[in-house]
Amino acid sequence: MQQERCSSSDRPLDPGCLQARDAERSADRPACAPVDFPVAVVLPAGGSGERVGLPTPKQFCTIFNRPLISYTIQAFERLPWIGTVVVVVSKENHDLMLNIVQKFNHTKVNVIHGGTTRHRSIFNGLQAFCSTSNSLTPKPKVVIIHDAVRPFVEEDLLLKITLAAKEQGASGAIRPLVSTIIATSSEGYLDHSLERAKYRASEMPQGFLYDIIFQAYQRCSEFDFEFGSECLHLALQYCGVNAKLIEGPPTLWKVTYKRDLAAAEAIIKETLSRSACIIAGAEAEAAELAKTLQKNLNMMETDVIPCAKESNAEYLSKTQNFIHLSTTGSNFLGVLEMVKHFEDTDHTRLYPVVIVWVQLNMTKQSVDSQKTDELAAFRSLASEVIQGNVLLYGIQIEHTKVIFSMRYHYMCLRDLKNFKL
Amino acid sequence: MQQERCSSSDRPLDPGCLQARDAERSADRPACAPVDFPVAVVLPAGGSGERVGLPTPKQFCTIFNRPLISYTIQAFERLPWIGTVVVVVSKENHDLMLNIVQKFNHTKVNVIHGGTTRHRSIFNGLQAFCSTSNSLTPKPKVVIIHDAVRPFVEEDLLLKITLAAKEQGASGAIRPLVSTIIATSSEGYLDHSLERAKYRASEMPQGFLYDIIFQAYQRCSEFDFEFGSECLHLALQYCGVNAKLIEGPPTLWKVTYKRDLAAAEAIIKETLSRSACIIAGAEAEAAELAKTLQKNLNMMETDVIPCAKESNAEYLSKTQNFIHLSTTGSNFLGVLEMVKHFEDTDHTRLYPVVIVWVQLNMTKQSVDSQKTDELAAFRSLASEVIQGNVLLYGIQIEHTKVIFSMRYHYMCLRDLKNFKL
Repeated sequence: MQQERCSSSDRPLDPGCLQARDAERSADRPACAPVDFPVAVVLPAGGSGERVGLPTPKQFCTIFNRPLISYTIQAFERLPWIGTVVVVVSKENHDLMLNIVQKFNHTKVNVIHGGTTRHRSIFNGLQAFCSTSNSLTPKPKVVIIHDAVRPFVEEDLLLKITLAAKEQGASGAIRPLVSTIIATSSEGYLDHSLERAKYRASEMPQGFLYDIIFQAYQRCSEFDFEFGSECLHLALQYCGVNAKLIEGPPTLWKVTYKRDLAAAEAIIKETLSRSACIIAGAEAEAAELAKTLQKNLNMMETDVIPCAKESNAEYLSKTQNFIHLSTTGSNFLGVLEMVKHFEDTDHTRLYPVVIVWVQLNMTKQSVDSQKTDELAAFRSLASEVIQGNVLLYGIQIEHTKVIFSMRYHYMCLRDLKNFKL
Repeated sequence: MQQERCSSSDRPLDPGCLQARDAERSADRPACAPVDFPVAVVLPAGGSGERVGLPTPKQFCTIFNRPLISYTIQAFERLPWIGTVVVVVSKENHDLMLNIVQKFNHTKVNVIHGGTTRHRSIFNGLQAFCSTSNSLTPKPKVVIIHDAVRPFVEEDLLLKITLAAKEQGASGAIRPLVSTIIATSSEGYLDHSLERAKYRASEMPQGFLYDIIFQAYQRCSEFDFEFGSECLHLALQYCGVNAKLIEGPPTLWKVTYKRDLAAAEAIIKETLSRSACIIAGAEAEAAELAKTLQKNLNMMETDVIPCAKESNAEYLSKTQNFIHLSTTGSNFLGVLEMVKHFEDTDHTRLYPVVIVWVQLNMTKQSVDSQKTDELAAFRSLASEVIQGNVLLYGIQIEHTKVIFSMRYHYMCLRDLKNFKL
């Protein structure tokens, strides 16, 4: 509808995939009140995810072989001012969750058992901070409650929510209504429709002074535990706190249906596609191609470096996308070195690395059988390294076939959207 | 939240991509009141789509080289009981829309100019039926109003909406609320939250007796035209008609953000992936592989046929996915015949056709250079036919490399999700 405008794209500024970036951003971020008090997170993840239409609960569905909940955890874990992240899971998913924590090296996470409803699970999470059996001390000043299936929460919003919660006692993210809300009669007819401007959709994250939300849960009724719709309401009803409402970006949306997994994957792909590193080697021809590539990849931030040696570690750590150029006769030793480097630096733990090996000058003259053997060797390397989360692609550019090669390359990579050649 | 349950997946039963299917379905559908009165559609498509975060309005964004709005039009056009589809576009998109209608051969569409708001555009659409300058007669008994950016509307829902509109005067699709709705104070604090059970999200499509909705627009105010949120409300306020509300499936969601395009693409891909046709040829070995394939493709409905001759046109028309097996020495003549057939039958107009040519028994003995030349020829064919919406892939299975070949094949096709080998 033309009259309800919202110019913000749904691409997150920073879905937490580039630690290096974060550092920069915190550095040059306009001064905002520092978080000089303990902040913790409670992440209820007990949902059965029936609506996704998948056997797996949606928080455990994987994107790039990594469960959705790991992306969400990372969005908090990467922030120095956030302490413990309490993940509340159903008993049957406890071991699965522990495996995820270990595999993706989540160092701030504490996994506990949930209750039979979302509210019981959140309360269990809050109690973990004061149970004697548990070492989650100090009790946080502010606790952030979020959904495991909203992976793209950004630092700026988390800061606003946290500071507003400290000041006001409670705070929550909101979004404009996408649909008109209507009241229905008991017989299933339209009774009346609400005036959109007066209402908002209540989203996550929400922030609370720990003592406020804990007290609210201590006071609330069985009915609230069973059917209560949200924490902000409990804080208002049982502690008289009117939450401060803060408009969040569209990326806060909740992964609810199967299609939302495709949407989340698209967002992650796009974010991973913003930068690339071109390893040009020494030869003039390769350097030439590197320049052209850099021009064609103008949608991406690109670095061009001569080789993938330790000395260039800084460049290698900045991106997940690499184009390795080499010229006639050269083998793919350079690629092997890179793969080794990424293994040593754990660079592929959270996101896959894509390496495209471009071999130039395979002219008609070159011996077909030699080509075939080298290809075979490269292919078996590719099928090895994919285990280590490295996606290895090769292109042999024969001058008579450049156009095809590029199209073919593009076809192979389209599903990664990591290159727009 | 565990307590709000909804078991329906978001995969459409029938997003209108398989005309053959539709015929079957109508045939064996449980008898429901026939639509023996004229029904038309008004499709406002004037939106600027700012929220998608793209320069193109979202209804014109393409999936598989086809604009979203063409999918939506097709969802109506394929139904024999629906007459004219009036598409209302802004002046600057008029020619673009006409090109779409022609390119995708939309035979029921009438393109007219919109107003400055959604309501003005809808009214323009309705007036098209009674303007003398326009030959859109007879005036429909029931008019369905839908969004150009909700492509997955299914026949069953359209039937319910249409019949309820005829009986009640107005009807509309609803969905349960995903988020809690809250009322905000003027200072941006929580005032109160609504009791979810009493409210619904009002979605599209909506249906009306033509005379009712036309009268409502004739009576409504300038304010309604500028800021009115929806048609159901106008029918209630100005004609005293309480619309019948009908719960629709999750696939009714509105493509609002860029990520929703990826979600829509995923749904279309999945739907296109439900069937395949294997052309096995005569040789025993190929027939053997065909059987194995059919077993491995158990997620898909598969037919196995000996050749792609006219006699098998029925099978060829049933799917968009083809695996063409051939054995040593054979060239890809069979593939050429198929491509020709699809050109003649216009089979690729709405959806791309995927042909995977699997060449068996390329053993080490076979001459490398011969292999290379055949590949070269095949590649240039692939880059030709892609213009005609045919995606052509080749696999040479060398017995020593079967595993690799399959993985590689999978990599190439992953973005089409049309095969799960």
